[in-house]
Amino acid sequence: MIASPIPPGATLGMLGGGQLGRMTALAAARLGYRTHVFTPEPDSPCAQVCTEVTVAEFDDCAALTAFAAGVDVVTLEWENVPPDAVAHLAGMVPVRPGASVLLVTRDRLEEKAFVNRLGIKTAPWRAVRSDVEVAAALDELGRPAVLKVARLGYDGKGQALLGDAVDPAAAWNALACGQPLDAVVEGFVDFACEISVIVARGMDGAMACYPAVENQHEHHILARTIVPARIEPALAAEAEAIARRLAEGLGVVGLLAVEMFVTKDGQVLVNELAPRPHNSGHWTLDACPTSQFEQLVRAVCGLPLGPTGYLCACVMENLIGDEVARWGELVAVTNARLHLYGKRDVRPGRKMGHVTWVGATAAL
Amino acid sequence: MIASPIPPGATLGMLGGGQLGRMTALAAARLGYRTHVFTPEPDSPCAQVCTEVTVAEFDDCAALTAFAAGVDVVTLEWENVPPDAVAHLAGMVPVRPGASVLLVTRDRLEEKAFVNRLGIKTAPWRAVRSDVEVAAALDELGRPAVLKVARLGYDGKGQALLGDAVDPAAAWNALACGQPLDAVVEGFVDFACEISVIVARGMDGAMACYPAVENQHEHHILARTIVPARIEPALAAEAEAIARRLAEGLGVVGLLAVEMFVTKDGQVLVNELAPRPHNSGHWTLDACPTSQFEQLVRAVCGLPLGPTGYLCACVMENLIGDEVARWGELVAVTNARLHLYGKRDVRPGRKMGHVTWVGATAAL
Repeated sequence: MIASPIPPGATLGMLGGGQLGRMTALAAARLGYRTHVFTPEPDSPCAQVCTEVTVAEFDDCAALTAFAAGVDVVTLEWENVPPDAVAHLAGMVPVRPGASVLLVTRDRLEEKAFVNRLGIKTAPWRAVRSDVEVAAALDELGRPAVLKVARLGYDGKGQALLGDAVDPAAAWNALACGQPLDAVVEGFVDFACEISVIVARGMDGAMACYPAVENQHEHHILARTIVPARIEPALAAEAEAIARRLAEGLGVVGLLAVEMFVTKDGQVLVNELAPRPHNSGHWTLDACPTSQFEQLVRAVCGLPLGPTGYLCACVMENLIGDEVARWGELVAVTNARLHLYGKRDVRPGRKMGHVTWVGATAAL
Repeated sequence: MIASPIPPGATLGMLGGGQLGRMTALAAARLGYRTHVFTPEPDSPCAQVCTEVTVAEFDDCAALTAFAAGVDVVTLEWENVPPDAVAHLAGMVPVRPGASVLLVTRDRLEEKAFVNRLGIKTAPWRAVRSDVEVAAALDELGRPAVLKVARLGYDGKGQALLGDAVDPAAAWNALACGQPLDAVVEGFVDFACEISVIVARGMDGAMACYPAVENQHEHHILARTIVPARIEPALAAEAEAIARRLAEGLGVVGLLAVEMFVTKDGQVLVNELAPRPHNSGHWTLDACPTSQFEQLVRAVCGLPLGPTGYLCACVMENLIGDEVARWGELVAVTNARLHLYGKRDVRPGRKMGHVTWVGATAAL
């Protein structure tokens, strides 16, 4: 049985107050939805554009209960919302994507095991819980390799490169700080490029896939996305098929972003999953009939998914830290579409906004 | 001397809480501005998406003062904001467009006189203040003609058609209800079509003009806009030149929407001006690099104006009253872009949303 759609005029609840929530709220408003954000952060980017705002910690049960009473469906812009908070909400209001998806994607070990269970390749990896296990993993996988915490890492935080000169015990201790820690050692991938695919999946199981795009990182943070990815059509099709299988396998209702490596010998390896809007999909605001944010709203509200083809080639460039000072120059350029997130404090590595160069190629 | 731009992160104040303010606030947010709406209406469409909301009457000086203290620039979505409120605000914060513009466009008599002073044609018209003057105007202009109140009319409200059978005194009394009234009698225009042009003008006097579009009204309310207007290029160029001259003559900073008739003998006559976003410019959200709403934000914040060409032909259709029930069907159509305004109460004649048929022609 398909649940009835949640109609415009209803209230979309958002867990997390960052720019992903902000752009989702703006898309929801276009379709006539009210929005209510729940976030621990005062004056968050998302709160600035929402109808209602709850500023509270995710372990504040009374606040969660009051929030649930005021919304018709809940989605999220951050996959690390505590499982207890999600479970508490899910007893009162639909949470999409649901707890079973988040339990997989919040943990690198669960995620990689899930991907491999579907017969989809990742880089070789080993679960590690001690310096001894790191050393053993390195013996099996070789160097260089990367040590990553299983949970709560992002933008290169909670990672260490294990090059030839690195002592496994020192790397482990720097990450674990004497505490028990679940982590993973990933074998080195000699990739030709990094790509991602964002797929939307509705309550009825229907899926809509955005084209594969190419991502360039600097200092572990996405610097730019090139649309479409400069890879063979067969590889792009393979990447899109992988994203669909993963979304179906997880039973996502909402979005699934799949980051992948294309190796120099033409393999597609899954790197990371995110069950939410993704930085590599920001270009869809300016070069797609349906943005990833509108698509998320459609999926979680039970509306039909919108078309996902690209209208023109483009390049999305993040404005990180004081790069945001370029706004005055960018806003004057004919084919630059500027998006700023309303963050007051400029900090190194902080995503302050982005610009989509419409009709641009990677030669930019 | 050019004032410095008001940078993203600053707060845009909006007078009026309807859908025009809502769509402006959404555009402002994209560029990183905070928004603050001042409106007498509780739970207005605009308030649902603004950072801050003041619900107060326009004669509440304390509320206006507090509002002015919290914003960096003020614009408006309704040209009938009381002049006293505008004057009060303008002593504390820039109001764009300014009081001198509003004094002209809030009054049909002032407006028509202004247009004619620039040597630009309107339908023939006479100012009238009594039933006797209505009868005299009819003698000069012939029948049919239209009697309109000078101020506060919209969507056909405050108008009466003076056909062959209509008694001038009865028409006058129905409109004036025994009170003193400034009104206008407009001679009948045998038009081929109605068109409009929206022009933006910046603080530095730079202008950017959207293409002339064609408007079809039903029951005095805009039903659809056809982009571009189906008129000769020379007529479109004339209409655009007229809009630029009017914006310059008024000294608008912001937007000026100019509604015009194209007569069967190929004349362009100005009908009405509106110094704000206009229903006939909603298509720019979906088929223009810069929407009229973003353009307003750019103009009043002193940013360079954005490009205004159309990316594809389209038709914008208003969803009026219970036509909004079509949302479920429209949201499933590939080339329909649905916009809903968050209005809870469906009333006959109320603009509930619109849809842009991208790539559509008037044959739709």
